[in-house]
Amino acid sequence: MTPSDRGPHDTTLDLEAILATLERTPRTFRAMLEGLPEDLLHTTEGGETWSPFDVVGHLVHGERTDWIPRLEIILNEGESRPFDPFDRFAQLEASRGKSIGDLLAELEGLRTSNIERLRARIGAGLDLAAAGTHPDFGRVTAGELLSTWAAHDLGHVAQIARVLAKRFGEDAGPWRAYLPILEDRT
Amino acid sequence: MTPSDRGPHDTTLDLEAILATLERTPRTFRAMLEGLPEDLLHTTEGGETWSPFDVVGHLVHGERTDWIPRLEIILNEGESRPFDPFDRFAQLEASRGKSIGDLLAELEGLRTSNIERLRARIGAGLDLAAAGTHPDFGRVTAGELLSTWAAHDLGHVAQIARVLAKRFGEDAGPWRAYLPILEDRT
Repeated sequence: MTPSDRGPHDTTLDLEAILATLERTPRTFRAMLEGLPEDLLHTTEGGETWSPFDVVGHLVHGERTDWIPRLEIILNEGESRPFDPFDRFAQLEASRGKSIGDLLAELEGLRTSNIERLRARIGAGLDLAAAGTHPDFGRVTAGELLSTWAAHDLGHVAQIARVLAKRFGEDAGPWRAYLPILEDRT
Repeated sequence: MTPSDRGPHDTTLDLEAILATLERTPRTFRAMLEGLPEDLLHTTEGGETWSPFDVVGHLVHGERTDWIPRLEIILNEGESRPFDPFDRFAQLEASRGKSIGDLLAELEGLRTSNIERLRARIGAGLDLAAAGTHPDFGRVTAGELLSTWAAHDLGHVAQIARVLAKRFGEDAGPWRAYLPILEDRT
């Protein structure tokens, strides 16, 4: 992958930015959620949507089965072996009976270990253009996987903030007009 | 304000949830932003949109001129004196030359002091139905102001996450389809 393939950012800087993001997500979740009243931890946007608690469980499951395992498949087996599909709902069962403190600690431990594995790969000369096969998308690269990992973290930080904001929006009266987050659904 | 005016949540619980949110925002910003590479701190969504650094400055300005000062106007002067309009751009000048560490410390100090002022008002029997006059909306209540304060914090947590996510989305390849945050503009 040449710099011109990747837009204005150089590869080194991208990896620094990705690592800086990945390192911060468990602390961000802890800052937002540790000690929060239970009704806020379990509030949702209705129907089958996720609570903040569910989102943390989703990231724990991703640490176990998605990001680094897929990077390893790319680097060890290339395009010949498609990734295992990611089960977005497996975490709902796996989180049952756990406290938010359990999940936050689990996420921190797994993330620390996965960042170590990523740093070891980078130290060994990680090729961001190395390709694998996604079960839905087909050909994807290691660089795309790592950029997605960082963006995915941040998407779920935004989701938790949005779910919690809606808990207060119903009482905001006319100020709702200045709170566009209350209308977001993504 | 009776419980039936306020939906299924009781007043005590609302104030607890609001305080729990207000207390966590400065730490959440610190967890997300302290030590982050400068290019991420200053990345925007283009045009006049705000960077993560700008958002922290916006909240600092709100601590000084918006939330508690308006609560005091409601409780001391009622509907007779409209709030001063909030200048959403004053912070851009006030933040110039400061580091993110300066702004995070400033926010923490101001927020701690403002939560103390709020707790003192609650201890003295804060009336959530007390009304003031918003320069655009007209009649608003203390309860609406406090709910808005919490939702506003969370909206800006989501904004920072979204702005940062877009920095990575351009390199996510086909996974963009699974990252709806990249399309959000609010």
